[in-house]
Amino acid sequence: MKSIQATDYFIHFHQDGFKKLNSYIFENDPSKIIILVDKNTKKDCLPYFETKLKTSIQTAVIEINAGEIHKNIDTCVDAWNALAELNTDRKSLLINLGGGMVTDLGGFVASTFKRGIRFINIPTTLLSIVDASVGSKTGVDLGTLKNLIGLFSNPEMVVIDTKFLDTVPQRELHSGLAEVIKYGLTYDVNLWNSIKKNDLFNSHLNEIIYRSIEIKNEVVIQDPREKGLRKVLNFGHTIGHAIESFFLESEDKETLTHGEAIAIGMVIESYFSYKLYNFPKEELSNIKSKIIDLFGKVEISNNDYASIIDLMKYDKKNIGDTINFVLLNNLAEFNIDCKVSDDLLIDGFKYYEK
Amino acid sequence: MKSIQATDYFIHFHQDGFKKLNSYIFENDPSKIIILVDKNTKKDCLPYFETKLKTSIQTAVIEINAGEIHKNIDTCVDAWNALAELNTDRKSLLINLGGGMVTDLGGFVASTFKRGIRFINIPTTLLSIVDASVGSKTGVDLGTLKNLIGLFSNPEMVVIDTKFLDTVPQRELHSGLAEVIKYGLTYDVNLWNSIKKNDLFNSHLNEIIYRSIEIKNEVVIQDPREKGLRKVLNFGHTIGHAIESFFLESEDKETLTHGEAIAIGMVIESYFSYKLYNFPKEELSNIKSKIIDLFGKVEISNNDYASIIDLMKYDKKNIGDTINFVLLNNLAEFNIDCKVSDDLLIDGFKYYEK
Repeated sequence: MKSIQATDYFIHFHQDGFKKLNSYIFENDPSKIIILVDKNTKKDCLPYFETKLKTSIQTAVIEINAGEIHKNIDTCVDAWNALAELNTDRKSLLINLGGGMVTDLGGFVASTFKRGIRFINIPTTLLSIVDASVGSKTGVDLGTLKNLIGLFSNPEMVVIDTKFLDTVPQRELHSGLAEVIKYGLTYDVNLWNSIKKNDLFNSHLNEIIYRSIEIKNEVVIQDPREKGLRKVLNFGHTIGHAIESFFLESEDKETLTHGEAIAIGMVIESYFSYKLYNFPKEELSNIKSKIIDLFGKVEISNNDYASIIDLMKYDKKNIGDTINFVLLNNLAEFNIDCKVSDDLLIDGFKYYEK
Repeated sequence: MKSIQATDYFIHFHQDGFKKLNSYIFENDPSKIIILVDKNTKKDCLPYFETKLKTSIQTAVIEINAGEIHKNIDTCVDAWNALAELNTDRKSLLINLGGGMVTDLGGFVASTFKRGIRFINIPTTLLSIVDASVGSKTGVDLGTLKNLIGLFSNPEMVVIDTKFLDTVPQRELHSGLAEVIKYGLTYDVNLWNSIKKNDLFNSHLNEIIYRSIEIKNEVVIQDPREKGLRKVLNFGHTIGHAIESFFLESEDKETLTHGEAIAIGMVIESYFSYKLYNFPKEELSNIKSKIIDLFGKVEISNNDYASIIDLMKYDKKNIGDTINFVLLNNLAEFNIDCKVSDDLLIDGFKYYEK
């Protein structure tokens, strides 16, 4: 597969990707290579990756706790301390091997250690492949506030190998699919149609991944700092992030995957689109049924709405107290910075639940 | 005083500086202004600053703990949470009013909150005026490792008013003087000569400050990312930072100011310069006596040397395990990336102590 040029770096694929990685290391001669993994990728991905990494440079591994709940400053402090203990210097290279939690956190840790060391991302989940691999966003959560702390910082390169997906449980695979659906709904009718027709994980997963990365990259290159166009990527996320945070902090509820939360967000925001921008009713039904088919139905009770809406006010995309939405006129026709009344917010949740 | 143009922003002075600040706010119309202070600057500097700030925009104050010991991630977490509670958004402006601890930490907090909000620095100590005001470095300590976490990030502007120095105790004023001495020794013989002649805090403090900022700015503009020339600013700091950390973490020793530690570092590194680069013996004596005259003599015992040397190995300027020094052939003639043997390291401490 042809490499994709992102803002300031390349995304390489499969065996060619590892070749490019090894050449990069050979040419740049880092003083040390540190591989950041979590408990899962240490077991499932590191052994395979180590067969691909060809270098005589000293290599060390740092393991962090797995899971979104550990995507926080405490884990950064552990990682910074581990880097310091390894005498990591400004010519060292950090390789982040894992899902979005590892690549987001690892990118932030690298960019702020000694005012910045270089890093490479190797995403190992569908979500991180189609989302975190492009866009230069790094960061961690602050309490329940998602990605509140972070910065824009480019990796040296991204290497994508779908072989890693063999180790990902189905629920995690589906989580990544929510972003693919988002690219389809907001940007590419063909992509949405092929999702509707199913058969994703058999014949053409590689093409769907490639097309998703192309779309995200096209958006990010036009608007790297999220001043306008890039906001389209937030479709489903205004509601979705708040739902994700709410389930994460509720002790009596099971944590949702990012994709499960965003999928609900897309149903509700499609409903707003139907109400405010005449988004076709038939497609609204298709979206809801496809999403419930893929992700199941999540129970959100009347009592939860107020807390979720409160969390939305903290979304870092907001200016002042206004909550901004991306809403659709039609498939692949979007508006940014849309406002929604409090009543309609509630109706959206009810539409999803009914 | 004429404004100085730094890499990507201006340093403005005195009443003209506040005028520029007010115009900036008027033109950029931030959604909110947050002033970051510590306990001391809240009491000593904020009332005066508030008489200078002319705006109808909503303003809030965040107070953090004072002192180098609080220049850490915990304080950042407090500040990030306070910003979140104030609903700070990407169009808000943070004004850091304080010494280097407040401007370094505040710059880091702003640059990493929601992937970066704008900030302005108003340094209120001599040290932060002649050092932290130029160079775009932001950051905090990790344990005893100074400024290990941080990044390069430009303020929108810096406003300097020496009126704030009226509130700074003499020990803190002297702390800033160490950096002025550094600029003299490494870059400007006239500046060093005027320091030797005394009378600093009377007639020409403003000129000395202005000249110091000019020198630092000249260096930083030529080498913003510390690849070569900028390392000259590290004179006295390789030893000095380690001494500062050592005294900070030793429970039975009184904490030194940054300047006191750097001053000792300059004596010891001048001694290395004399031994390895024929730096004139007479100037070496002048340096030692002027520094002891200004900063007093600090007792460092034989037993402390090993711990201090260990701390040096963590200095973020090092590549691998090598410790790099800036050493002088003569006044204002320097070499970067110099190495010093372990024996000479010990001799340096002994020279200072004898």
